[in-house]
Amino acid sequence: MKSIKYLTQHEAIVMDQLLMGDKYKFPTESLMELAGLSVASIIQKVYPNISKKVLTICGPGNNGGDGLVASRHLVQFGYDVEIFYPKKTDKKLYHDLVCQCKHEDIKFLGELPDNSLLSKEYGLIVDSIFGYSFKGDIRAPFDKIIEQLSKTDVPIASVDMPSGWDVEAGNIKNLFTPALLISLAAPKKGAESFEGIHYLGGRFLPKEFLRETNLTIPKYNGCDQFVNISKNNNNNKN
Amino acid sequence: MKSIKYLTQHEAIVMDQLLMGDKYKFPTESLMELAGLSVASIIQKVYPNISKKVLTICGPGNNGGDGLVASRHLVQFGYDVEIFYPKKTDKKLYHDLVCQCKHEDIKFLGELPDNSLLSKEYGLIVDSIFGYSFKGDIRAPFDKIIEQLSKTDVPIASVDMPSGWDVEAGNIKNLFTPALLISLAAPKKGAESFEGIHYLGGRFLPKEFLRETNLTIPKYNGCDQFVNISKNNNNNKN
Repeated sequence: MKSIKYLTQHEAIVMDQLLMGDKYKFPTESLMELAGLSVASIIQKVYPNISKKVLTICGPGNNGGDGLVASRHLVQFGYDVEIFYPKKTDKKLYHDLVCQCKHEDIKFLGELPDNSLLSKEYGLIVDSIFGYSFKGDIRAPFDKIIEQLSKTDVPIASVDMPSGWDVEAGNIKNLFTPALLISLAAPKKGAESFEGIHYLGGRFLPKEFLRETNLTIPKYNGCDQFVNISKNNNNNKN
Repeated sequence: MKSIKYLTQHEAIVMDQLLMGDKYKFPTESLMELAGLSVASIIQKVYPNISKKVLTICGPGNNGGDGLVASRHLVQFGYDVEIFYPKKTDKKLYHDLVCQCKHEDIKFLGELPDNSLLSKEYGLIVDSIFGYSFKGDIRAPFDKIIEQLSKTDVPIASVDMPSGWDVEAGNIKNLFTPALLISLAAPKKGAESFEGIHYLGGRFLPKEFLRETNLTIPKYNGCDQFVNISKNNNNNKN
């Protein structure tokens, strides 16, 4: 396949500003719905048979929103999902997303279960804490949460970036490495060294946007909302 | 399979009011994105190899909006799409949807090509003129358009209801019958007699909503955004 372009943090920020700005005019709701749906679809593809619960940990920004949407779709796909969302965002969009999740019978946890409870009751952790815009220090309460994630044996699926990783330099703080990484729209430079299962979701970049930014993205098949871009995936040699 | 419930027009209207109202709090943008994506995915499933163009005809309401979203996704899937949208809706959501389509290089036609041009250049017509809320007479310019659709030999895929059909009594005006009908969320009574290829899309009804309304919907597989509910489909006998 053509070599994949990995975005700098600046390029990723500009991409989102462009898509949701005056030119491309995507409402956040639409892109978040597609991003979250692709996250859930990839999890269904990679982990079709999880007998235990799925725990989604949501951060305070759009990455957390993607996790809320993904959780709602995971319930539609038959998963038993719980959410830990310690710093809820006080915006209508986020209140609505929480409300939608509650009507899917998703339980919101008051605290993160300890690692022995995690191992016992949960088959997958969805890390939607921080995405492409993360910078600097990991603030409380996410510092402790990410520290705990380094020690769990439950597989972790990270949304867009493994939380706490430098968006360009990768895992320089020696934090957890997820089993599955789901990049959105285009992978970021910090994910270039990632050796695990790596999928791309968020199939919504307009033709004109790709021309304007000279961006090459991997080829999706049919109506799939995802494509496997793992380094050891033989199917993506086209 | 369990017998499918076909909604009355009143039930369909109440369903949408509930989903987008104060209880379930779905933004129109989210549901329209999922509906339109499912329409495009079903078309990709049923007509994977259309060498000619696809023409989407959009009506003035939400059914037209679903067609705009579907068209955008069809381009993502590799189709060459044009849109005829004679009565554009003067709301921000619709201006934005048109803008998004234009950035996918979709051409908006000033008039409907005549039937000889349709046959020559188009492999599929997507009818997203009227949906579940249609009632009464077919107003201009859609009366002539629907009359023309009765005479074309290009296959038609109708979104939610074949346009002009009575939502409960079906094709009582003896209008065109589509090759493919894509019901959204739940099929409507007027589609009960439909004998062609029939899919259900719009996989977003919350668990609590299904309990509250005592509604049974067909079982979707995996992360599929659609399910085949055609009468002659052997796969749906579960």
